Amino acid sequence: MPIRVSLVQLGKGAVGSALVDQVAARRAALRDRLGVDLVYAGIAGRKTATFSPSGLDLARWRVALGDGAGMDGRLLFKEAARALRGPSILVDATAEEDMTSLYCEAIEAGFHVVSCNKKPLSGPLRDYQQVKETCRRQRRFWLYEVTVGAGLPVIGTLRDLVDSGDRVEAIEGCFSGTLNFLCASLDRGDRFSETVARARDLGYTEPDPREDLSGTDVARKTLILAREAGHSIEPGEVEVSPFWRVDLAGEPAGFVTAAAAHDGEIAGRWREAEARGLRWRYVARVNGGCQAALREVPADGPFGRLVGPENIFTFRTARYDSHPLTVSGPGAGPAVTAAGVFADILRVGRAIGRTS
Amino acid sequence: MPIRVSLVQLGKGAVGSALVDQVAARRAALRDRLGVDLVYAGIAGRKTATFSPSGLDLARWRVALGDGAGMDGRLLFKEAARALRGPSILVDATAEEDMTSLYCEAIEAGFHVVSCNKKPLSGPLRDYQQVKETCRRQRRFWLYEVTVGAGLPVIGTLRDLVDSGDRVEAIEGCFSGTLNFLCASLDRGDRFSETVARARDLGYTEPDPREDLSGTDVARKTLILAREAGHSIEPGEVEVSPFWRVDLAGEPAGFVTAAAAHDGEIAGRWREAEARGLRWRYVARVNGGCQAALREVPADGPFGRLVGPENIFTFRTARYDSHPLTVSGPGAGPAVTAAGVFADILRVGRAIGRTS
Repeated sequence: MPIRVSLVQLGKGAVGSALVDQVAARRAALRDRLGVDLVYAGIAGRKTATFSPSGLDLARWRVALGDGAGMDGRLLFKEAARALRGPSILVDATAEEDMTSLYCEAIEAGFHVVSCNKKPLSGPLRDYQQVKETCRRQRRFWLYEVTVGAGLPVIGTLRDLVDSGDRVEAIEGCFSGTLNFLCASLDRGDRFSETVARARDLGYTEPDPREDLSGTDVARKTLILAREAGHSIEPGEVEVSPFWRVDLAGEPAGFVTAAAAHDGEIAGRWREAEARGLRWRYVARVNGGCQAALREVPADGPFGRLVGPENIFTFRTARYDSHPLTVSGPGAGPAVTAAGVFADILRVGRAIGRTS
Repeated sequence: MPIRVSLVQLGKGAVGSALVDQVAARRAALRDRLGVDLVYAGIAGRKTATFSPSGLDLARWRVALGDGAGMDGRLLFKEAARALRGPSILVDATAEEDMTSLYCEAIEAGFHVVSCNKKPLSGPLRDYQQVKETCRRQRRFWLYEVTVGAGLPVIGTLRDLVDSGDRVEAIEGCFSGTLNFLCASLDRGDRFSETVARARDLGYTEPDPREDLSGTDVARKTLILAREAGHSIEPGEVEVSPFWRVDLAGEPAGFVTAAAAHDGEIAGRWREAEARGLRWRYVARVNGGCQAALREVPADGPFGRLVGPENIFTFRTARYDSHPLTVSGPGAGPAVTAAGVFADILRVGRAIGRTS
C-alpha cells in the first residue's frame, strides 16, 4: 500500500500551476516507483483557496479555487493543520515576505516545507536560523533547491559538499538567467531597451524588470548559497552593484521606454570589451565575502561562452581544487522551476517511502 | 537524541579507506546537523574483516582489520545482519562480481545499500531488476551516485528528471576521467605510451590500463545511465568501440611498453584533427540506443575544451530543450569518489533523521 503524503500549496502563479499539473501527471507512476501517493489536499491563491482533506480533484482545481473566495493561504494552512494526519508538505510557491512564523508553525505541526520563495531564505539571519532550528528539533525537511538556479542541482550539490566535510573555497558564476539573456543579446549587438522588453515578454524578468536590473535577485541567491556554505551573514553584507544604474521611480511600462536613453552608452561598453577579447557578464561570488556585479570576463571562458537565459555555478573546494565542479543550464522558466520544486517533494517522498 | 545508523562496509581500497576517514571526521557534526549518528559497525577487506555491533574504534580500524583474518565480506554481513538492530546501510566499496544475492539478502534484512561498485548495476538486466524490485518491496534505498562521474551530481539529477516526468531525449558526454586525461595530454603533443604510464602512476587508470582503453568502463557507465533513464537494456546492447585497438594479452607492466608501437599513428590522427579545428574525445551517448566511441568534436565546444581528468554530462530533455542541463568536473580520484559515496549515505541519513 502506498503511503499517502499530503501537499498543501500556497501560490498558483506560473510555477505553482505548472507544479500541480506535473504532480498530477506523475501521481500514478510514483505510487508504484516510490511507494508514496502524492495527494493535493489544498491550493491557495492570494485571496481564494480550495481544500479537501481527502484530496482535490486536480482535473478541476482552477474552478474549485474560484469557489473558495475569502480564504487565503494562512487560513488554508490552519484548516490543513487541523484536518490532515500523516506525512504532509507545505509548498510555498509564493514570493511573499514574512513567512517565517507560518513555516515554523507548519514544522511544529509536523509538516515538511518546500520553498520556491527566496525571501524566507534571504531575510534576516535570525529568521533563517529560526526555521532551520525548528526543523532540526522537529526532524523535518526544509528544502529550497529552486531558489537558486531553478531546476539545476545547485543547493543539493552544495549541501552534499558541506555535509561530507569538504571545505568550500569559492562559489562563482552567473546566477541570473534574465541578466545573462541581456548580456548575450547585447553581445549580438541588440539594443538594451529592446532586449529588456523582449526578456519581459518572454517571461524571463520579474513583472517589473528593474527588480532584475538592480541585482537584488542575484544578491538573494548569493546570500542563500553563502548561508548554505556555512557563512552567518545578513542581507546587507552582500556587496551588490546593479546591472545598470536605472531610475527606480515611475511605472514599469514607462521604464522600458526610459531605458532607451542608456542604449548608446551600453552598446559602447560592450564594443570596447569585445575589442579586448572580453565580454560583460553579471558575476556573483561567494568566498570570504559575497559580491554581485557586472564584470569583464574572457569571451572564450566558461562565463563568457554562456548564451541565452542560462546559469552557471562553479564550486572550488578542498577536494575540487584543480578543476571546479560545474553545473550549468537554463536557470529560469516555469517548467524547469516547477520540476525543481517537484524534485524537492520527491526527496521528502523518497525519504518517507524508503524508510518506513 | 540522534538516531543511530549502522554502517557495514565491504572494501577497504583507496575509496573505501578515504570514506571511513571522511565519515569519522564528520560524525560529531552530523549528529547535530542531521540528528543521526553514523556508526561503523564493520569493515571488510578481501580476506579479513572487523566487526563490533557497538561501533568500531575508527582511530585503529586498520589494525583491527588485520586481527580479523579469516572473515570475508559475506561472513561480515551475516554477522552484522544477526547482531544489528535499527537503521543500517551496507556500503559496497568493492569491484566484485555477483553481488546481487548479497544485496537482496541485505535489503530483505532491512539494510539500505550504497554502491560504488558498478558491476551489480551493469550486469544482466534481470539481476538489476531483482535488486530494484526487492528495494521497492522492502522500502529500502539502493543508491549508487558514484558509479557514474564519481562525486558529480549525475545519477541524482537524472533520477529527479525522470521521477518528475521529464522526457530524456539524450544524455551525452565524456564519462571517463582517465580517457579524457589521455585525450587532453595527446592534444598537448604528449606520447600515447608515456601518457598511459603517467595516468596509471597518478592512480587515474584501473590497475590494468587496458580496462580503461577497451571502453568497458565507459560502457558500464553508459548502461547505468540508460537504465536509470528507463531503458531496459542488456550489457551487450551498448555499442562500444575501444579507445584504441590494444593487445589484451600479456601482463599489465608489459603493455605500457607495447603501447609505444601505437605512438606514431595516434599522434598523426591527433594532428589531422587539430588542423581541422577538431579534437578527439571518447564520447558516450544514450538516446534511442547506447554508444561509446572515440569521436572528433569541435575544439572550442564543451567536450573539446575539457582538460585533464574531467568528465562532462549533458542532459537534453523535453524541459531542457534549447540548452542542455550540464554537469562537469573531476570525475575520478579517491577523495571525490569517497565524498560521493558519503553523499549517498547522507541521503539515507537525512531520510531517517528528518522523518522520524
